[in-house]
Amino acid sequence: MAYNYNPDTLQILPIGGVGEFGMNATLYRYNDTAILVDAGVMFPDTDQPGVNLIVPDYTVLNEVGVSGLIAGAVITHGHEDHIGGVPFLCRDLDRDMDIYGTRLTCGFIRKRLEEHRFNHKVELHEVAAGDTLSFGEIKVHLLRVTHSIVDCVALVIETPAGTAFHTGDFKVDQTPIDGKNFDFAGFAEWGRRGINLLLSDSTNIAKEGYTLSERTVGDSLRAIIKASRQKVIVACFSSHIHRIQQIVTIAKELNRRVVLLGRSLENSMSVARQLGYLKVPAGVMANKEEIRDIPEHRLIIITTGSQGEPMSALSRIVRGETKQVEIYPGDTIIISAKTIPGNEKSVMRIINSLYRMEAEVHYEEISEVHVSGHASREELKLVFSLLMPHNFVPIHGDRMQLVHHAALAKEMGLERRRVAVVDSGDILELAGDRVRKIDSIEVNRRFIEGDRFEELEDIALRDRRRLSEDGLIVVTLLVDETSAELVGDVEVITRGFLLLSDDEEEMAQIRDRVRRRFSELKRKDRLNWEAVRPKIRSALRSYFRKRMNSFPVVLPIILTVPGEKRK
Amino acid sequence: MAYNYNPDTLQILPIGGVGEFGMNATLYRYNDTAILVDAGVMFPDTDQPGVNLIVPDYTVLNEVGVSGLIAGAVITHGHEDHIGGVPFLCRDLDRDMDIYGTRLTCGFIRKRLEEHRFNHKVELHEVAAGDTLSFGEIKVHLLRVTHSIVDCVALVIETPAGTAFHTGDFKVDQTPIDGKNFDFAGFAEWGRRGINLLLSDSTNIAKEGYTLSERTVGDSLRAIIKASRQKVIVACFSSHIHRIQQIVTIAKELNRRVVLLGRSLENSMSVARQLGYLKVPAGVMANKEEIRDIPEHRLIIITTGSQGEPMSALSRIVRGETKQVEIYPGDTIIISAKTIPGNEKSVMRIINSLYRMEAEVHYEEISEVHVSGHASREELKLVFSLLMPHNFVPIHGDRMQLVHHAALAKEMGLERRRVAVVDSGDILELAGDRVRKIDSIEVNRRFIEGDRFEELEDIALRDRRRLSEDGLIVVTLLVDETSAELVGDVEVITRGFLLLSDDEEEMAQIRDRVRRRFSELKRKDRLNWEAVRPKIRSALRSYFRKRMNSFPVVLPIILTVPGEKRK
Repeated sequence: MAYNYNPDTLQILPIGGVGEFGMNATLYRYNDTAILVDAGVMFPDTDQPGVNLIVPDYTVLNEVGVSGLIAGAVITHGHEDHIGGVPFLCRDLDRDMDIYGTRLTCGFIRKRLEEHRFNHKVELHEVAAGDTLSFGEIKVHLLRVTHSIVDCVALVIETPAGTAFHTGDFKVDQTPIDGKNFDFAGFAEWGRRGINLLLSDSTNIAKEGYTLSERTVGDSLRAIIKASRQKVIVACFSSHIHRIQQIVTIAKELNRRVVLLGRSLENSMSVARQLGYLKVPAGVMANKEEIRDIPEHRLIIITTGSQGEPMSALSRIVRGETKQVEIYPGDTIIISAKTIPGNEKSVMRIINSLYRMEAEVHYEEISEVHVSGHASREELKLVFSLLMPHNFVPIHGDRMQLVHHAALAKEMGLERRRVAVVDSGDILELAGDRVRKIDSIEVNRRFIEGDRFEELEDIALRDRRRLSEDGLIVVTLLVDETSAELVGDVEVITRGFLLLSDDEEEMAQIRDRVRRRFSELKRKDRLNWEAVRPKIRSALRSYFRKRMNSFPVVLPIILTVPGEKRK
Repeated sequence: MAYNYNPDTLQILPIGGVGEFGMNATLYRYNDTAILVDAGVMFPDTDQPGVNLIVPDYTVLNEVGVSGLIAGAVITHGHEDHIGGVPFLCRDLDRDMDIYGTRLTCGFIRKRLEEHRFNHKVELHEVAAGDTLSFGEIKVHLLRVTHSIVDCVALVIETPAGTAFHTGDFKVDQTPIDGKNFDFAGFAEWGRRGINLLLSDSTNIAKEGYTLSERTVGDSLRAIIKASRQKVIVACFSSHIHRIQQIVTIAKELNRRVVLLGRSLENSMSVARQLGYLKVPAGVMANKEEIRDIPEHRLIIITTGSQGEPMSALSRIVRGETKQVEIYPGDTIIISAKTIPGNEKSVMRIINSLYRMEAEVHYEEISEVHVSGHASREELKLVFSLLMPHNFVPIHGDRMQLVHHAALAKEMGLERRRVAVVDSGDILELAGDRVRKIDSIEVNRRFIEGDRFEELEDIALRDRRRLSEDGLIVVTLLVDETSAELVGDVEVITRGFLLLSDDEEEMAQIRDRVRRRFSELKRKDRLNWEAVRPKIRSALRSYFRKRMNSFPVVLPIILTVPGEKRK
């Protein structure tokens, strides 16, 4: 662990989100003042069974002595991969925290905090695009950007050592639904004043051209819904206020009523309505108890489940598990979202089921029912041209995206030495126009399970993987405490394992193997669990390896019974 | 189970591969003669841990009394999803089998059979494009098609009840590497004679335009390899003879030597070379022991692992587990394959690792290093126009693809009633120009584990899934046989579970809960395992649900010990 700070420099330490997708968090430090930009979560892969969330282990900031310097966290926007880590941040640093975000961002953070029990105080400060925040000698200027959630900002981080520009997530939507435009003037003005280092969103670096405006999705949805003579179900991300706003507006126009299904959707809608981000004409919304009373052709249901999540509202409807909604041939189902890498199979499974039910299905590959919230290459170049940065570091992307974004910066004319591809944990230093990597620290990951927000240890995760791959075999031995001999039969139970308990012959062999191995043990060792268990385990492991090239988890249970003068 | 046969009709029963991706197998029956077209496997999803292969359960053919009518199996080409099920077919039908395929197809089947132990005889009959096979009143004409493996045929199945055309997998490659052209004349001639029913490959229905010729990949590979000053590693499918032929040819031109890494690659190359399908100039191939002696810039390594499979040669190279090969900055790695749905994350992980090693990486999204082996929409239309079928049934695709392919057939002018979308198990009947679905039977799936080719029962699979999602808790109770009281402590062991064994307080609560539930049982029930186990299980399940909203597998083990007059 090498942590170092050179006085009077702007230090930039990505804690997450660089070289990996999600859990964005970056520390900016100037002398004895630091700020954190974003504190997000990452969603697990399918080979991390039982894990709900992944967050960076912020305790590393205590270890390197930076924790106490943090004057506050500035959050760019309200997506989970930028806000979801706030409770873990407070817990890890064991301190209260001042958090700065726009009104909607604060609304989402507040909702998230209500779901957690933790002992620290989070002070939420509502700020707005155009504001400047001061943290000692660090000034943070907020510039409005457009994205797939409303009320997003990019940050200009101005210090005596130089100025960094942190884009957060963005696209350049020239016709945003709320009429609140991307701050071209602010970007150009900062470009003129001089940006020493640009850190920019790499999510869509592989996409040529421009990302279409959110407004184009509205046109497609309107046409599809207008053509439907039955009910329409739209699955989308619960935080996509503008998408939902468009559906509500279309519903009003076409004289349909809208019902929301799915807890996260209901939650974010209530936040957005309360704070005035969603304009809902009277009489459009209905609740799920009213569904049966609304004629099918007057109904639009908005649901969660665009990623094919098995417990989501859409999956449950498809499986026929909801009382209120049933899918009939000819119903229209719109998956108005991108499939996140790793979810392809689940999404395809839902779509295939829907086709089998003879529904009419629309999804990104075949209809214009979704546009991305991230800038494509031409937009990335546009922002680059507006800012004319002297140095460049790509963020928000895995290694492959960062490498391609770095190549783009070189195409834009930056010298190779002015472009750096880094990983989470790498420490960058800005001093005027010189950027260099001075060191790196190791940031661990925490695996969070269930809704208790408790941590799943690495070992449990490894066990689960093995259990899921090769199953389990439990053998129970009963040992007489006095004679150190086995009592009764060896019990064998298998789970998730090729060999089923009704294969009596194989079971007999396993029991025999265990008995023999036990009898080979020295008498004095036989009552010592710690000595017996590894022997039994390795005997069975080698048995299964040889017999069937299989590596189940072997769990030997050894119990002692009070001794008798048995023979 | 409704199976029926109407005399003098051509019955078509897809056993697999329709409404699902892989395990292609279709039965064609005319009176007392039947043939099977293809007998493939399907590869599992990531949520089917431990499963290696999935095959249809052919025993259904015994149950409906068709098994004895099968005169032989005609195989269209040598891919696993068309040949891999042959051993299971023989085992399930409990009979010998005559198999007809082209020379390379037979070569691959022979290799596959060597890896199995089973008791039946498979007679391989080598046939060729242009041949006509006779099975009673069923005549099968073989027409050459192009695809991503060589020596492929489409089948014309001619019977007194009508003629069906079964395309198998194909693309229309006008410039195939081996100069053996797609049989346009044969297709057109059969179109003129009259095709009553076309069954056609739906894999690429979502792709507009034409699939590029395999030859274009050679041009890209040549340019990339020529530009490299270091070693080049190419990952591709082991059966893709033409891809490998092109790499070998390029190696010769550029004065590089080729080493194969990966068992399946070595196997299929040895088959292809033996049978003369691969032309290898002298001195080009080297074996892996020679790698260290070949200058890096004179080396091309062809590996398996294009899907990011963790145990493949490429993954092992990236993890630094192979002695012979190490990746240096500037090495060129080419993933010359499509990412199969479900493998996106694994492939991305490999690519990210390679970028991190500062290798130069080429893959389908950013370079022209792969073309599909399946026909895009314009090719599907071309084949449709050549054959002018009177009826249409899409095959080789999941429901979503079949529905889109059916829509294409309607665009091509077929009336709606002449187009049918069916599932595996549905029974179609052709009588002249009339096609109808007369019934359906249920075809189960078999889940095959490991390399023993033994079956993994559904219940084990379900258990594994639960184990992998929520972990496991084993509680062991020792019961005095005479007094029916608990003896000693309740043992608790957890695996893959949030709650680790060192949380003593929680452990004490669990033990207490088990003791209490046990003591509530009637005395006479306490020695009856079947009575005790469900009670303990449900007590703990409700405990975990309430405490932590978690659903682990609960395994209660109850052991009795000989009674004593304990108090």
